[in-house]
This record gives sequence, C-alpha cells and structure tokens, in this order.
Amino acid sequence: MNIENLELEEKAEEILALYKNKKYSQIKDILTEINPTDIALLFDEFEPEQQILFFRLLPKEEAAETFVELDNDTQEAIIRAFSDTELREVLDELYLDDTVDIIEEMPATIVKRILRNTDSETRASINTLLKYPEDSAGSIMTPEFVDLKKNNTVEDAFKRIRRTGVDKETIYTCYVTDESRHLIGVTTVKELLLHEYDDKIADLMETNVIYINTHDDQETAANLLSKYDFLALPVVDMEHRLVGIITVDDAMDVLQDENTEDIQKMNAIMPNEKPYLKMSVFETWKSRVLWLLFLMVSATFTSMILNAFEDKLSAMIVLTSFIPMLTGTGGNAGGQASAVIIRALSLKEVDFRDIFKVLWKEIRVGFVCGITLAAVNFVKIWFVDRLLLGMDGITLKVDLVISLTLVIEIIFAKAVGCAFPVLAKKIKLDPAVISQPFITTVIDALSLLIYFALATSILHI
Amino acid sequence: MNIENLELEEKAEEILALYKNKKYSQIKDILTEINPTDIALLFDEFEPEQQILFFRLLPKEEAAETFVELDNDTQEAIIRAFSDTELREVLDELYLDDTVDIIEEMPATIVKRILRNTDSETRASINTLLKYPEDSAGSIMTPEFVDLKKNNTVEDAFKRIRRTGVDKETIYTCYVTDESRHLIGVTTVKELLLHEYDDKIADLMETNVIYINTHDDQETAANLLSKYDFLALPVVDMEHRLVGIITVDDAMDVLQDENTEDIQKMNAIMPNEKPYLKMSVFETWKSRVLWLLFLMVSATFTSMILNAFEDKLSAMIVLTSFIPMLTGTGGNAGGQASAVIIRALSLKEVDFRDIFKVLWKEIRVGFVCGITLAAVNFVKIWFVDRLLLGMDGITLKVDLVISLTLVIEIIFAKAVGCAFPVLAKKIKLDPAVISQPFITTVIDALSLLIYFALATSILHI
Repeated sequence: MNIENLELEEKAEEILALYKNKKYSQIKDILTEINPTDIALLFDEFEPEQQILFFRLLPKEEAAETFVELDNDTQEAIIRAFSDTELREVLDELYLDDTVDIIEEMPATIVKRILRNTDSETRASINTLLKYPEDSAGSIMTPEFVDLKKNNTVEDAFKRIRRTGVDKETIYTCYVTDESRHLIGVTTVKELLLHEYDDKIADLMETNVIYINTHDDQETAANLLSKYDFLALPVVDMEHRLVGIITVDDAMDVLQDENTEDIQKMNAIMPNEKPYLKMSVFETWKSRVLWLLFLMVSATFTSMILNAFEDKLSAMIVLTSFIPMLTGTGGNAGGQASAVIIRALSLKEVDFRDIFKVLWKEIRVGFVCGITLAAVNFVKIWFVDRLLLGMDGITLKVDLVISLTLVIEIIFAKAVGCAFPVLAKKIKLDPAVISQPFITTVIDALSLLIYFALATSILHI
Repeated sequence: MNIENLELEEKAEEILALYKNKKYSQIKDILTEINPTDIALLFDEFEPEQQILFFRLLPKEEAAETFVELDNDTQEAIIRAFSDTELREVLDELYLDDTVDIIEEMPATIVKRILRNTDSETRASINTLLKYPEDSAGSIMTPEFVDLKKNNTVEDAFKRIRRTGVDKETIYTCYVTDESRHLIGVTTVKELLLHEYDDKIADLMETNVIYINTHDDQETAANLLSKYDFLALPVVDMEHRLVGIITVDDAMDVLQDENTEDIQKMNAIMPNEKPYLKMSVFETWKSRVLWLLFLMVSATFTSMILNAFEDKLSAMIVLTSFIPMLTGTGGNAGGQASAVIIRALSLKEVDFRDIFKVLWKEIRVGFVCGITLAAVNFVKIWFVDRLLLGMDGITLKVDLVISLTLVIEIIFAKAVGCAFPVLAKKIKLDPAVISQPFITTVIDALSLLIYFALATSILHI
C-alpha cells in the first residue's frame, strides 16, 4: 500500500496510541503491512526510544530495508542502541553499496563497530569501495552482481543465479567475464528464459557492452543508464576488469540529486543534500549568504555607473523611473537563455562545439523578442504611463530611448546568457554555477550603459 | 559500445564515405555494432534519403529499437517511404506504449496507415491507450505485462513467461490477478528463481501492492517508482482491474522531462519538450516572449513608485545609485527561497500543512542574511563607495537607510519567495509557474516602497 502524507500521520497516531497501551504485537502487525520506505517516513514522527523499540519489532529483512531508508541521525541512534548480534543481523541483510553509504555518514566509533561486525571478505570490499572519490561511478556501484562464463549453458546460469542470487541487488542483467575477470559480454534473465536449457551463453550474449570506469562521474553513469534504458550498468577498473554494477534505482537518485543541485546553483545557493525541513536556520543561512554577499558587492558596478551619470539623471529625472523595468527585463531575457542552455548542457544536447550555432540563434531570438517588447513598451509608455498615469517628462524621444534600450539590451542579454554557461563548461566549471543572479548582475550593468549611451546621444543631455 | 559525440561524428563520416562508394554491406556491419540509441543519434547527421536507405539495412529487431529513438520528423519520413509490408514488420516489433507515443505525434494520414497495418486486437489496445489524458499514468503505461493466477506454481509461471515473455517490455515483475482481472498480488522473477518449482504463487506473492490509477498524474507514477525503487508500477482502472504497467525507464524519462519543465517555468519560459537545437527561432521566441511581456508590463508598478518619489529622488540623487543593488539583492534573496521551496514541493518534502513552519524558518533565515548583508554593505558604502570611489552625497544617514532597507527587504523577500509557491500549489497551480522573475518583480516594488519609506522618515526628505 502506498501511503500519502495524511495517512502517514494517522498511522503514526494509531501506533502511538497502541504504544501507550503497550500493545506491541499490534504495532508489529501494522508495521509489517507497510512498505519499508514508508516505515522510514513514519519513523520521523516518533521519539528516539520509540524508533528503537519499533525497529526491533520488524522482521529481519524488512528491518534491513527500513534501516537503509532512515536518515543518518536515526541510523546512528539505532546502531548505538544495538547489541553486536543485532547489528550483525542487520548488516548481513544489507547490500554492500548501502553499507558503504551508511559508513560514509557515521562517526568513527560507529564505523569501527560496523567493520568489526562484518566478515573479512565484506570488510575488504567495503574498504575498496570507500576509496573511490566522492561522486565517482565507483562510489555508487555495488560489487554484488551475477557473473557467468561464456561456455556456461543456460541451465548453468540459472543454477548459479539460484545459488548466489539471494544476495545480489539485481540478478536480471548477468555479466560474462573471462578468466582474468575482464568484461566480455552481457545477457539478461529475459534472454535466458527465452532460450533452451542447453544453449551456450557465448551464443546468446551481447558482446558490444556499454560500461563505465570506476573513476568516471556518477552523473555520467546515471545518464548512460537513462539513455540506454538499462536496469544496471557495469563498472570496470583501469585494466577493464569488471568490479561492480550501478543499478537503475541508484541512477535515478543520482539524477534527482543532480537536478536539485543544478536548481540550487542556478539560483545562487550552495548545494546541500539535506531535505529542506531538516536544515537548520544556520545551515540555510550558510548555503545562501555567500552568493548574496558576492552579488551585492558586484552591484557596486551599477552604483558606479549610476553615479557617473548622476548629473544627467537629475537633469531628466523621468529616466530613473524606468531603470528597474529595464534591468529587470534584461535579467529575465538573459535568465531564460542561460536556464535553457544550462539544462541543454546537462542533458548533453549541446556542447562547446555548438557555441556559434547557439549564439547565432540566441541573437536572432533576442532580436525578435526585443522588437516585440520594444513595440509594446513604446505604446504602453505613451498611452498608459504618460496619458493614463500622468507621469511627468515623457516625450517621444524619451519613449524612443527606453524602447531602443530594450531591443539592444535583450540581444546582449540573450548572448551573455547563452555564452557564459557554455564557456564555463569549457573551462571545466559547472555551468550551473553561472547562476541566473550572476548573469543578471552582469546584464544590469550592461543595460545601464546602453541606456545612458542612448540617452546621451538621442536626448543630448 | 558507448559512443561520445565526437566518436559519433567520426562514425558518421566513415559511413558517408562508404555510402559514396555504395559499400552498403560494410555500412550494415558498422550499424549492427552500434546500440540502437546511438544509431538514432547518428541518423541526425544524414540526409533523409540516406536515413531511409540505412534504416533498411538494419536487422528487424534493431530496426524497431532504432525507430523508437528517432525524432518525429525522421519517423514520419521513414514511414512515408515504407511499403505496407515494411511498416508491418516494424510495428510488429514495437511495444504498444511506444506505438502509441509515435501515433500521437504523426499526422492523420500516417496514423490511418499505422492502424490499417496492425491486427484488430492491437488496434483496440491502441485506441484505449489513446483515450487517456495527456500526462496521465494511463498515457505512459503499456498493457503488455506478465500476469499470473494465485494457484499457479512457480513452474507454471516460468512456462507462461517463456511462452508470452518475448512481447513484454519487462518480465521481471509479475502481477497476480483474480478471475475479474483485479490486482491481488505481485511477485518477481528473482523471487520465482529462489523458490522451488512446485511452490504456489499464492504463498510467495506480496499482497500489499503499491499501484496507481490510470487517471493519476504521470509524475506521481514516476515519483512512486523512484521512491520505492521499483522496476515497474502496476496501473489499475476505476474498478481496480489491472490494465497496464509503467516501466522504470519511462519513469526516468518522465522525471527528466518534468525537471526540464520545472527549470523552464522557474525561469519564465513556457515549457517545450523539443531539444534546444531543434527549436526554430520562432518557436523559441514564442516560448519566451509572453512572460517577458507580462513581466515588463508588471514593472509599471516600479515605474509608478519611482515616479511618485521623483521629487525626493531629485532632492537626493545619490539614492538612485543604489536602486539596482537593492532590487537585485531582494530578488536574489527571494529567488533562493522560492527555488528551494519549489524543488521541495516537487520532491514532496514539503506540503501546504508546512506553510507556517516554512514561513517562520525563512523569516529567521531572512533576518540573519539581512543582518549579515547590511553589516557588510554599511562598511562597504562608507569605505569603498564614499572614500575610495568618491561618490557624492553619501552621509552616515544615507548609508543607514540603504543598510536598513536591506534587512527589511530580505526578510520580506524570503517570506514572499517561500509563500507564493506553497500558495500556488494550494490553489492547484503549478508552483514552478510562480517563476523567479515574477517573484522578483513583486519584490522590486516592495523593496522600493521600503526604501522610500525609510528615506522619508530618516532623511526627512
């Protein structure tokens, strides 16, 4: 059963009522009806001592599945409350990549306890996995996969899956390796099921295997899985030996995390993986204040420009009234271009070689957008601002200056907006770090320069 | 083999060279080595008549897989060039949900030809699928899944999979239905493989099935798949009868599309599914100009405010110099809050019931951000703008007005930025439509009002 937030709260209340009356076996019945993912969500509503008690009520396998989904603080509290036997039971049920994820977030004392309670083979695998750089394909892979040999038959394959499959995160994609563990082929359980028992793996395997290296970026891995619609992607080391696989559910999480990160960066926030409601005010402040400060100080340029044109502004104060509209529109136009390009870069629809194609397109789009906006603006200022709202000092020439500024600034804004992310990518910066606010700040200054240049030459001030 | 963009261009050149010398069988050899997803990318580099020729070189199954990945224009051109026999061969190999996707994009004459060339059973399924609303779970599901009965044995199940599995998009999750096709359980091939041949499905199936209704949103379906790490999600009709499944690869595409759409909306762009480089200048203009116009006209408010304070501004022209910095900082602060909240809403981390929690947090974050920025700004204006850059008219009181404005506007900006998306969601609007530029426009006006109120009372102008 899928549980909505509201239902979740009701369940929590029900369980807490049973807890008060010490009806633990009824709590157990409720919990075993619920998917582990939802149990973990439910646990957010309980006190630490309740969490530990309820966790102990779960059947072994469900306990492990729930444990993986809990947040780090709850995991830590539960491990602290565990006896070594209990800890070992949960660890036995965990997939290796999940164990590693947990270890990465735990304090040293807990890590020691976890390692002490795993067998030496597992411990060796954990240590290998821990060595891969953060955000690398190696760091999210699991070394537990089904491997076959090319002279196996379909029957051999099924025997092997039946014997070893219970511990594997996925059994549906099987990898064929040679004696030195080099990856030479891939097949699927579907393929196996559709063949005869005595068919040879060598005859049915796909030999054009798409794989990734342990040190490649995890986002690249996730994009490959998504592009080719795979359930798992094999990961090889420098010697082309198969060392692990990345499963589609982890790839999906990576994509979602990367999307969140992109949205944060595009809006001048330093990326943070914590869910919004779990971040403290201090943490939130920390993730936002540096960019705000940087952008505020960058705005010194616009202040300088305005200060330099102070005399002209005081001679024709009406020009001031349209400054926020002009900088705002420039920023919006540039922001549109940069958002689209940042997304296209991250979906690999565009790369550096396309820069002139992109620029030429954005300049044309800027031109038609600029003309449209200028035309509407010209009429609006004349009839609404001047006649209807009775603003002082609007002349045909003033209207012309403002409208012309729009055309030129929008073309510039589109060009800057699309070029910055592509150039950032070229110099190995994350394009999303070229945030909208940053582009807006640049375009603000540009817009003002265009505005005053036009004002000077057309209005002779 | 996974092909990078650069390799892709080399392959294309190699193929074109062979094409000139009419070495078609060598082209065939190259193409069969490449994954269909990459063949489709490769086709972008060829002329229409080449595409059709090369397509005919592909083996049947590979041809169908490639066809699905091609863009709509190429698909249309190929169908037009096809004889009915060729068309039927490709259609036979396609999964039903893919056929429906293609039909939805084709002109009526092509649709008629497609339907004429499918058997009556398939035609009926297609017509049913076409009736589901766009963006609904029904519209992305496939009616081809493995269904079992609860008194089947594991052996029966494998027989059924072997017999019918070849046409199913996924066989790994099997659904158990009763006589009236109601969904009563679910199991996996992994589970089946780990049980004895004579075990009963009823004993090993999971009865707490998580499912979705045909009319639910496709994004909800994708989120469920991602949340529970499923390979497929069952879709039931109003009578709880199992009518289809949604596979994880389609869910991943939905999530990526929705993310793209969110980023577009957040940046005042009307969503468009076409890849960037395939959109014409006119289409790009269309997706961007309306929001730009709306926001430009909305900025009339800021013009009005500035116009109303014209006398005060001309009395103390230095105040003008800091307007872009103040509106910019307000917009950035509000944009941070709204981006974070829009993302949290779409990840379901936050909902309407959290509004006061969210507001209270953002107000506190706004307060500490505001204090930090005001402090830095106060010092910066005094020492950099006044002493170093020699701006005229800066007094301690002016500096105070600007810095105080920062504190108050940032608190307001954070509150507006977080509240708007939550309220939008409440009235069933897409929170992402409350774009950053829209919030910025509102905050621009607010910031100016705060600025002038403080200037009036502190500077007595």
